[in-house]
Amino acid sequence: MAPPAHTLTQLAERFGLGLRGDGNTAVCGVATLAGAGHGELGFLANPRYRSELAATRAGAVVLREADAESAPCPCLIAKDPYLAFAKIAALFDPRQSPAPGIHASAAIDPTAHIDPKAHIGAFVSIGARSRIEAGAIVGPGCVIGADCVVGASSELVARVTLVTRVRLGQRVLVHPGAVLGADGFGLVRNGDHWIKVPQLGGVVVGDDCEIGANTSIDRGALDDTVLEEDVRLDNQIQIAHNVRIGAHTAMAGCVGVAGSTKIGRNCLIAGAVGINGHIEICDDVVVHAAGVVLQSITQPGEYASGTLLQDHRGWRRNAARFKQLDEMARKLHTLAKD
Amino acid sequence: MAPPAHTLTQLAERFGLGLRGDGNTAVCGVATLAGAGHGELGFLANPRYRSELAATRAGAVVLREADAESAPCPCLIAKDPYLAFAKIAALFDPRQSPAPGIHASAAIDPTAHIDPKAHIGAFVSIGARSRIEAGAIVGPGCVIGADCVVGASSELVARVTLVTRVRLGQRVLVHPGAVLGADGFGLVRNGDHWIKVPQLGGVVVGDDCEIGANTSIDRGALDDTVLEEDVRLDNQIQIAHNVRIGAHTAMAGCVGVAGSTKIGRNCLIAGAVGINGHIEICDDVVVHAAGVVLQSITQPGEYASGTLLQDHRGWRRNAARFKQLDEMARKLHTLAKD
Amino acid sequence: MAPPAHTLTQLAERFGLGLRGDGNTAVCGVATLAGAGHGELGFLANPRYRSELAATRAGAVVLREADAESAPCPCLIAKDPYLAFAKIAALFDPRQSPAPGIHASAAIDPTAHIDPKAHIGAFVSIGARSRIEAGAIVGPGCVIGADCVVGASSELVARVTLVTRVRLGQRVLVHPGAVLGADGFGLVRNGDHWIKVPQLGGVVVGDDCEIGANTSIDRGALDDTVLEEDVRLDNQIQIAHNVRIGAHTAMAGCVGVAGSTKIGRNCLIAGAVGINGHIEICDDVVVHAAGVVLQSITQPGEYASGTLLQDHRGWRRNAARFKQLDEMARKLHTLAKD
Repeated sequence: MAPPAHTLTQLAERFGLGLRGDGNTAVCGVATLAGAGHGELGFLANPRYRSELAATRAGAVVLREADAESAPCPCLIAKDPYLAFAKIAALFDPRQSPAPGIHASAAIDPTAHIDPKAHIGAFVSIGARSRIEAGAIVGPGCVIGADCVVGASSELVARVTLVTRVRLGQRVLVHPGAVLGADGFGLVRNGDHWIKVPQLGGVVVGDDCEIGANTSIDRGALDDTVLEEDVRLDNQIQIAHNVRIGAHTAMAGCVGVAGSTKIGRNCLIAGAVGINGHIEICDDVVVHAAGVVLQSITQPGEYASGTLLQDHRGWRRNAARFKQLDEMARKLHTLAKD
Repeated sequence: MAPPAHTLTQLAERFGLGLRGDGNTAVCGVATLAGAGHGELGFLANPRYRSELAATRAGAVVLREADAESAPCPCLIAKDPYLAFAKIAALFDPRQSPAPGIHASAAIDPTAHIDPKAHIGAFVSIGARSRIEAGAIVGPGCVIGADCVVGASSELVARVTLVTRVRLGQRVLVHPGAVLGADGFGLVRNGDHWIKVPQLGGVVVGDDCEIGANTSIDRGALDDTVLEEDVRLDNQIQIAHNVRIGAHTAMAGCVGVAGSTKIGRNCLIAGAVGINGHIEICDDVVVHAAGVVLQSITQPGEYASGTLLQDHRGWRRNAARFKQLDEMARKLHTLAKD
Repeated sequence: MAPPAHTLTQLAERFGLGLRGDGNTAVCGVATLAGAGHGELGFLANPRYRSELAATRAGAVVLREADAESAPCPCLIAKDPYLAFAKIAALFDPRQSPAPGIHASAAIDPTAHIDPKAHIGAFVSIGARSRIEAGAIVGPGCVIGADCVVGASSELVARVTLVTRVRLGQRVLVHPGAVLGADGFGLVRNGDHWIKVPQLGGVVVGDDCEIGANTSIDRGALDDTVLEEDVRLDNQIQIAHNVRIGAHTAMAGCVGVAGSTKIGRNCLIAGAVGINGHIEICDDVVVHAAGVVLQSITQPGEYASGTLLQDHRGWRRNAARFKQLDEMARKLHTLAKD
C-alpha cells in the first residue's frame, strides 16, 4: 500500500499555514531535518537544530517565518512549527483502528455491556457490570474487572488492567502494562501484624487523558482517585490512592505521587520527581527532573531540589561536608560577628 | 443488592468498642468525615481532620474518647480509631471471591496440581510441577511457570507472573503486573561481551505478604530471594536477587533494593528510596522519602538524605555551590584558626 | 531426574581452568561458599567472602591461584573465578527450552510469519506482518503488534508486549512485563489542550541484549529508539523515545532516560539513576547509584550526585542550610578578603 501524498498547497489550506515556494510539491512522509529524504517533509522548531536546515534534503520544511530565508526547499510557515508538524504527521501514521466486534476468545461476564461499535481483542477478560462504549478499543490481553467503564473512543492498547471501579472518560488512551484501580496501599498495625484498610473507592479518569506503559494508579480508600481531563502521564509512574491531578497537567516518566495529594492544573512534572502524600500543589507549577516535593507548593513557578553531578571523587568530599553544613553555618555566623 | 446494615451496638460488641449515643443507629456504609452522608459511618483518626468533625453529616463516627465531646452524632469510641475503622470498613467491601474451579480457557501443565477449592481464571497458564493450594485465587491473565507454589488462600489478582521457583505462603496478595522470579541481573564480562550468570535460586514469600502492582522481585542467583511474613510492598518496587526483607517491614512505592541486601524486621521504607546492594539494615529503621542508602545501617532510628525543594533559580545557585563545599569547609577552617 | 554430575577434570578441560587436588571429584550442583554441601561446587571471587573459605563444606571451589592455599577441598583455578563459575553454573540450570510449535490458543494474524522452529506459547497474540524467527521463544501471554521481528533464538519469557515496529536481533532476552514500542511521550500544546505528536518510529534492539521485568522502551517519534548489541537493562527501567544506547552498556534497576539522549558504549549506569533528555554521554562512563545527569558527559570516568544518608534530625538541619549555601559562600568570600 503506497503511503498517502499531500501537496504543500493542500497542507497549507488544511492547517492554516503560510506557503513559500512551489505549492505543487508533494510530500509522502515526515522526518527530521537530518534524516528527511526527497519526498519527505522536515520541520524546524527547536533552535538547536537550525544548523541542520541548510543541508537538509527534505522535499519541504515546516518552520517559522524567520527561518524560511535559510531553507533550501519550499516551506510551510507556522507560528508554532512543532504543532503544525504534529498535525501533519498524523496524516502519515500507518496505524489502523481495528474493526468493531468481539474476538472469539474473549471472556465476558454476561452482565457486562459491550457497545456493538467497540472492539474487544483476543484474550480479553471483562467483569460484572462493566461497560465498553462506542468506538472504544480494548486490545489483546486486557483485563477489566467489575464495575468499570471504558468511555467512547477510548483505547486500551494491550495488556492493560482495570481492576475494579475504574471509570474512563472519552478518548482516553492507556498503554500496555498500565494498572488502574489496584488496592491503595492502606495498612494499619494491629498488634505486631499489619491489617489492610479496605479500599472502597474507585478511579475516575477524565476525557482525553493518556496513561503510559507500566504506570500504576491505585483506587481510592473511600473517595476516588481522580485525573481531570487531558492529564498526560508517561511511563512507569505511580499514583497512589486518593490523589487528584488537575486538568492538562503532564508528568514525565518515573514520577511517584503519594496518597491524598492534590496537584493543580497545567502543571509540568519532570521525570523521576517524587511527591509526598497529603500535600497540595497549586496550578501552573513546574518541578524539574528528580525534584523531591515534601511540602505543599502555594505559588506558581519552577522548583527543583538535589545536587549536580560531578566526578565521583570530588562528590565524595562534598557529600561528606554536607553532613557538617549546619555546623559550618554556625561557625560562619560566629566568625562574621567577631 | 442492598448493602448490609449494622447497628452501633452490634459494631461495638463485635469489635470491642465504646458507644456513646443511640446504639440502635444503623450504618450501611463508611466514608470520610467530609463526604459521609446520613446512614454512613465516618472516622476521626488523624488530628488534621478534627476541624471537620463538627460539620459532619455522618450518621455516626468512630473516634478517640477525647474527641467524642465534639461529635454531632452517636459515636463508637476506640483507642485506635483508624484500626477500628479498617475492621468495620471490611464489612462493607463489595468484592466477592470467585467460585472454586478452573476456567475453560486455562492452560495447565498435566504435572501441575490445582486444589479443587482453588479458583483459576481465564487465560491463566500454569507450568510443570506447580501447585495451587486450597482457597487460592489465580485471576485472569496470570502466568505461573514451573515449580511454583501459590499457598492456601493466597490471591494473584490478575496478570501476575510467577516465572519459576516462586513459593508463596498463605494469604499472600499479589497485585496486577507484578513479576516474581524473573532472572536476577547477574552478568560478568567475558572479553568485550557480557555473559549471564545463571540464576538458579527462587523466591520465597512468607504468609500474609502483599506485593503491589507492577512490582518486580527477582529470583536468587544461588540462594533464594526472601520476604519473611507480613512484608508489605507497594507498587513499582524493584527487589533484586538474593535480597532478604524481614517480617512486618513495609515499603512505599517506587523503592529499589539492589542485590544481596538484608533489611530487618519492622522497617518502614518511604517512597522512592534507593537501597544499595550487599548491605544490611537492622530492625526498626525508618528511611524517609527519596533517601538513598549506600551503607549499612546498624542503629534503629529515622534516616534521610537529599536536599529540600526551592525555587529553581535559587536552587541553581546553591547546587553550584555544593560542588565547592569541601573547599568552603577548608577555607572556613583556616579562617577560624586565624 | 538426577542432576548432571561433572568431574573437576572434565570442568578444567572444558573451561581451560587449573586444577588442584583430586580431579575425579564430581560435583552435581553449584552454591555459595556458605551454603554449599558435599557434592557442590562453591566459588570465591569477591574478597569479602574470603573468610568463608576455610569453613566451606563444598566438594570443590573455583578460585584464584592465590586463594587455593587456604581451601579445605579440591580447587579449580581461574584468573576470573566469577566468570568461570558463571560458565560452569550454566551446566546446572534446569530450565528447558520448550518444543517448537504454536500453542492451539494463540491468535496469529494470517500475514505474520512464524518459523517452524519457533515456539509460541498459550494466549499469545501476533499482529500483521510480524516475523518470529527460528529458535525464538514467545512465552505465554505475550502480545506482539504489527510489523515486529523477533530474531533467531530470542526469547520473550512471558507477558511481554512489543507494540508496533519493534525489531529484536538474535539471542535477545526479554523478561515479563516489559513493554517495547509504546508511543513516545510526545505532546504539544494546542491552545489549552495537549495534542499528541504521532510516534512514527520504531525500536531496534541489537543482538544479545537483555531487557528486564516491567521495563519500558518507547518507540521513536520519527527515527528509531536504538539499543546496540549486548546492552543489558535490569528491571523497572524507562527508556524514552529516540534514545540510543551504545553496545555493552549495562543499566541497573529503576533507571530513567529521557528522550533523544545518546549514551555511549561500555557505560555502567547504577540503580535509580536519572538521565536528562537531549544530552550525550560518552563511552566508558560510570554513574553511581541515584545520580542525576542533567548535562552531557564528555569524559570517561565515574560520576555521582546527591547527599549521604544521616539521622533524620541532623539531616533536617543540614538540608535547611543547603538553601543558604550560596549566601554562605558569599559571606565566606567576604570574610576571607577582610
